[in-house]
Amino acid sequence: MTHTGTPVTVLGLGMMGGALAGAFLRAGHPTTVWNRTAAKADDLVARGATLAASPSAAIAASPLVVVCVSDYDAVTDVLDGPLDGRVVVNLTSGTPTRARALAEEVAGRGGGYLDGGIMAVPDAVGTPDAIIAYSGLRSLHDAHRSTLDILGTCLHLGDDPGLSATHEMATLVLMWGMLDGFLNGVAILGTAGVPPTAYVPIARTAIDTVAGWLPGYARQVEEGVYPADDGTVDTHLSVMAHVIEESESLGVNADLPRLAKALTERAVTAGHGSSGYAALVEQFRQA
Amino acid sequence: MTHTGTPVTVLGLGMMGGALAGAFLRAGHPTTVWNRTAAKADDLVARGATLAASPSAAIAASPLVVVCVSDYDAVTDVLDGPLDGRVVVNLTSGTPTRARALAEEVAGRGGGYLDGGIMAVPDAVGTPDAIIAYSGLRSLHDAHRSTLDILGTCLHLGDDPGLSATHEMATLVLMWGMLDGFLNGVAILGTAGVPPTAYVPIARTAIDTVAGWLPGYARQVEEGVYPADDGTVDTHLSVMAHVIEESESLGVNADLPRLAKALTERAVTAGHGSSGYAALVEQFRQA
Repeated sequence: MTHTGTPVTVLGLGMMGGALAGAFLRAGHPTTVWNRTAAKADDLVARGATLAASPSAAIAASPLVVVCVSDYDAVTDVLDGPLDGRVVVNLTSGTPTRARALAEEVAGRGGGYLDGGIMAVPDAVGTPDAIIAYSGLRSLHDAHRSTLDILGTCLHLGDDPGLSATHEMATLVLMWGMLDGFLNGVAILGTAGVPPTAYVPIARTAIDTVAGWLPGYARQVEEGVYPADDGTVDTHLSVMAHVIEESESLGVNADLPRLAKALTERAVTAGHGSSGYAALVEQFRQA
Repeated sequence: MTHTGTPVTVLGLGMMGGALAGAFLRAGHPTTVWNRTAAKADDLVARGATLAASPSAAIAASPLVVVCVSDYDAVTDVLDGPLDGRVVVNLTSGTPTRARALAEEVAGRGGGYLDGGIMAVPDAVGTPDAIIAYSGLRSLHDAHRSTLDILGTCLHLGDDPGLSATHEMATLVLMWGMLDGFLNGVAILGTAGVPPTAYVPIARTAIDTVAGWLPGYARQVEEGVYPADDGTVDTHLSVMAHVIEESESLGVNADLPRLAKALTERAVTAGHGSSGYAALVEQFRQA
């Protein structure tokens, strides 16, 4: 394979890191890799990657250094030695606070820093279906845009390096809420002998319905008024009580509707009984 | 307007009941209505409906009686008098236990019973976009299918009259999980000054991603094995801890990720650390 384009380094070769390095190799970029367990690089080396003996050697090999390891402690461990003239693209999941601190540390050591969140599974990396949301100086993002485009569709969120992790948090709580709701529904239907695969099309209809409400909810939150277009908070509360009661009698976990009910009760106490469900945002804003 | 087809009665003229009666009127069915507050019938009467003086008079007027009131106590109140030769279609939200009990009671009084759940907002009623899931004897459903088709797309779930309410419960916990996850995400992004409308397309991407996982999750649950195609339970647990920690430092409500973490910890204890997230179904099956 002919290697062209900016040399790149990938630190961390888990499922996601391996997919990132593979995408660079397919695009013909000279690719240096490093992983704590070197054997994980075997397949990539066979496809043309260079295995570095240490993180600092890997960093020295390329101006663009992509980091995708287990957590921020591991990021700090691998970002060893000088970073002059290096741009660190950190795709490790973390918090906005740690992303901002790391951006300062990298800048102090002579490097540039972009934080990124991959909104995709490893198999989608290297295709436009993988959306990767970056934060950090736009000038840095734009300077490396053509290389970053190889990994997926770039979305620049803003200059604050914490923005990517903030968006990732927001995405994760939504995903967990959906997944927990789906698995809770599977458990409820299981009590009536309904197989999970039969629930999928019904769940899909519910998901599409709720997804259709979200633009309106978002506008309501921005305006701070919550007309009850699809049911009042009071109605939700009464239905939640029934769902909890029946879940208990079925012996199914009722923690999710109980949490929804606790938040909904607080919204009623705050005077939002006749409002729509978007009024609950005020409860989520409070610890 | 020429009235044709089976005479129908609608008991309860809230947002949903009014939409149901309106759909029957548009289709030209002789429509009798009743509501606790009679004034709510004015618009429908102007469009050709007959206002009955009492629930029993309304029931006497039509072989098909649709009930859509606030809760099952209200259903029992309005289902007054004899029901010989009547088919009661109850579209009031309730529990499977109460649906089964009501089906027995109606049968004991000479009537037929179908329970139904409307998977749509009132505006969609009377269009194919409104999916209405019925349970109860298929013969009853099929006998009235052409009339029920007026209200929306019919889905017959099975002869057990509790199935509709069971499906509705499963749908509701999913909807609340999604809505709470979205509003939690709105609150998180608000701390970084990101407006809710800017979150919508990102939330949509996350929703589509998760929706794409559900058929696979459903198959995993049916097979009782949970390969980690998109991340392990252990990884989710570690990310949840970070999200909770950061939510606390941002002063944002962390109840939803805390609930997800508690369930995930139990899955790890049960030996599912290396499994995929679908393994959590076993936790939802336990009170």
